Amino acid sequence: MKASEIRELLKLLDQPDIISFAGGIPDPSLFPVEAAKAATNAALSDPAKAAQALQYSISEGYVPLRRWIAAHMGRLGVACTIDNILITNGSQQALDFLAKVMISPGDTALVTAPTYLGALQAFNGYEPRYDTLKIDGGNATPASYAEAAKAAGGRVKFAYVVPDFANPSGETMDVAARDKLIDLAEDLDAAIIEDTAYEALRFEGEALPTILSLDIARHGHIDATRTIYCGTFSKTLAPGYRVGWVCAAAPIIQKLVLVKQASDLHSSTINQMIMHGIAEAAYDTQVEAAKALYKGRRDALLAALAREMPAGVEWTKPEGGLFVWVTLPEHIDGAELLARAIAEERVAFVPGAAFYATETRKNTLRLNFSSPTIPQIETGIARLAALIRRM
Amino acid sequence: MKASEIRELLKLLDQPDIISFAGGIPDPSLFPVEAAKAATNAALSDPAKAAQALQYSISEGYVPLRRWIAAHMGRLGVACTIDNILITNGSQQALDFLAKVMISPGDTALVTAPTYLGALQAFNGYEPRYDTLKIDGGNATPASYAEAAKAAGGRVKFAYVVPDFANPSGETMDVAARDKLIDLAEDLDAAIIEDTAYEALRFEGEALPTILSLDIARHGHIDATRTIYCGTFSKTLAPGYRVGWVCAAAPIIQKLVLVKQASDLHSSTINQMIMHGIAEAAYDTQVEAAKALYKGRRDALLAALAREMPAGVEWTKPEGGLFVWVTLPEHIDGAELLARAIAEERVAFVPGAAFYATETRKNTLRLNFSSPTIPQIETGIARLAALIRRM
Repeated sequence: MKASEIRELLKLLDQPDIISFAGGIPDPSLFPVEAAKAATNAALSDPAKAAQALQYSISEGYVPLRRWIAAHMGRLGVACTIDNILITNGSQQALDFLAKVMISPGDTALVTAPTYLGALQAFNGYEPRYDTLKIDGGNATPASYAEAAKAAGGRVKFAYVVPDFANPSGETMDVAARDKLIDLAEDLDAAIIEDTAYEALRFEGEALPTILSLDIARHGHIDATRTIYCGTFSKTLAPGYRVGWVCAAAPIIQKLVLVKQASDLHSSTINQMIMHGIAEAAYDTQVEAAKALYKGRRDALLAALAREMPAGVEWTKPEGGLFVWVTLPEHIDGAELLARAIAEERVAFVPGAAFYATETRKNTLRLNFSSPTIPQIETGIARLAALIRRM
Repeated sequence: MKASEIRELLKLLDQPDIISFAGGIPDPSLFPVEAAKAATNAALSDPAKAAQALQYSISEGYVPLRRWIAAHMGRLGVACTIDNILITNGSQQALDFLAKVMISPGDTALVTAPTYLGALQAFNGYEPRYDTLKIDGGNATPASYAEAAKAAGGRVKFAYVVPDFANPSGETMDVAARDKLIDLAEDLDAAIIEDTAYEALRFEGEALPTILSLDIARHGHIDATRTIYCGTFSKTLAPGYRVGWVCAAAPIIQKLVLVKQASDLHSSTINQMIMHGIAEAAYDTQVEAAKALYKGRRDALLAALAREMPAGVEWTKPEGGLFVWVTLPEHIDGAELLARAIAEERVAFVPGAAFYATETRKNTLRLNFSSPTIPQIETGIARLAALIRRM
């Protein structure tokens, strides 16, 4: 299934009788509208601030927001300054910039199977070769990765991971896997792109150290690390402002600032000021509210799957995030299931094939639990399970 | 002078005793703060609208804004629909996307000498070869451009122009030059990138037809044209929201939508809603106010140059926009003049050398008249002229 087909599919979300597990977007009931109004008023009611808010600004990003983010990164075990922070238009733009800086046609990007579709879309424009990153080690060695990359006419430039509650798998890398990934990247002299879109949305269990913090622990200082942390407010506060960030070694940030300047000069000045205001006023309460809402929906989804699905269907048990990944019996193609699910059961999801860079497993699908309500989840999974039994 | 040095220079603008002609930014006294407040309230006070404003949205851009722009383009002689419009983060992002889509390393981009520095920064990431576009014809032929491009290992992919009150030259292409450019592009089977950042800021004289409208007149329909119009609200309403657009043949827009999606998903939803509200409420009055303010400053600048500058100094007489281009006697280097102007006279400007893609004319400089006040213009030019007389 192509991106264009998924786009067509997403249009179905507007049909009120479709129960959709296809999205990947926050529940808008969580949006911090009052904090947004207050922050906007603060930016526009003072003439000097308004003159700044509506004007061009520096490519690095609004200093008070970068200061807030640097302190936030400190709470995640990443000692850094504003010189380690670049503001981007969501983390999607960071992925685009990183591929632009690192990938020449024929270079290799290591990605998991499955991986985030939007990352593949960002990387594809720079014509990488993909190789499969095995989070649990598997049997690939640094030498085997390097040799395959060389044979393809380039080298391994980075490994891309979503370490917490990944999109689409819902899975989390344990500390050993994170450490092994740093070993691999060091052996390959490659970067690690750590996409933390869902990291804040942990419903249970201990938070794990970020890969960047483990890299700092090895090398003593962020400026000696190879891990590039991509953060975003899209899943915790609101995606409509398009504010995310990169946190990395200062020399990497300096390169990315030039890319940012060439690409769109800077992220919206007023949006950065507003996001700073919202973060100051409401970050923790927003995150708590999101976790409470999504945990209830995840619990309902896992319970419904256990109750309804026939033998031979398996799924992940995410400790957070927005997604559960389902593996069907080999004979069921997720795309065919989707066509029938919409026609016969008025249920939608994203077939899994789109999330693979190389070899595809068609008997997979992604279920989102941030958008459907608990009654919709229960009805939708019962209907989907009934259809699977008929196939 | 490198971009990094110009950035250092721009930091001087914060020093209150410097009279700066170095900027290229709107006067913040013009910003539509009340309209921005009203549009923000409209977006956030209705819960359904707020849920839309703070959410993800489609890559093409907010439909009511694209509808407003399509009607605006109609007033500029460009019959089009929303399928011909993509919203970008200012026109800078459009330049980046167009180079990404069209340029492979070694392909040729035709640019004027001088040309917009930000365009060169956007294009450089894709490693074009540059050749000089002679607006007035000159002695280059389509065959000579094509042969030189082929010898460099690619072909001419586009010609980039700022047809009205160009940055940095202040010059405007007449209708004959616009028609000749279409001829050339057709001979070369190349695109035309029409950057109209300053088009709305005409102080006097008749508005000239856009290149896109001339292209439509030849071919009967926008979808049969090769001209890609890049528009922005940055100079007419406010740059801080980062909202611009591309207007072009639908097949070109469809390609760019995929680039937009891969690059940053979409421009800020709420900013597009706010910009639509401001444009509906205040576009014409904002443009009139900007023209009145900047015309007064341009008049003061041209009068001061005529009054103060010694023989051997020449400058353009722009009918609009933000910039006057000055050519010094051959023995004066603009960068050396800048260093002395700051040290001895507390006056800043941008040396001209940065604006050349290929052969550089160092005895040039760009003067901005949108930021300094009339008394600053009069004092600043008198000081600069006194320094030039000493060199």
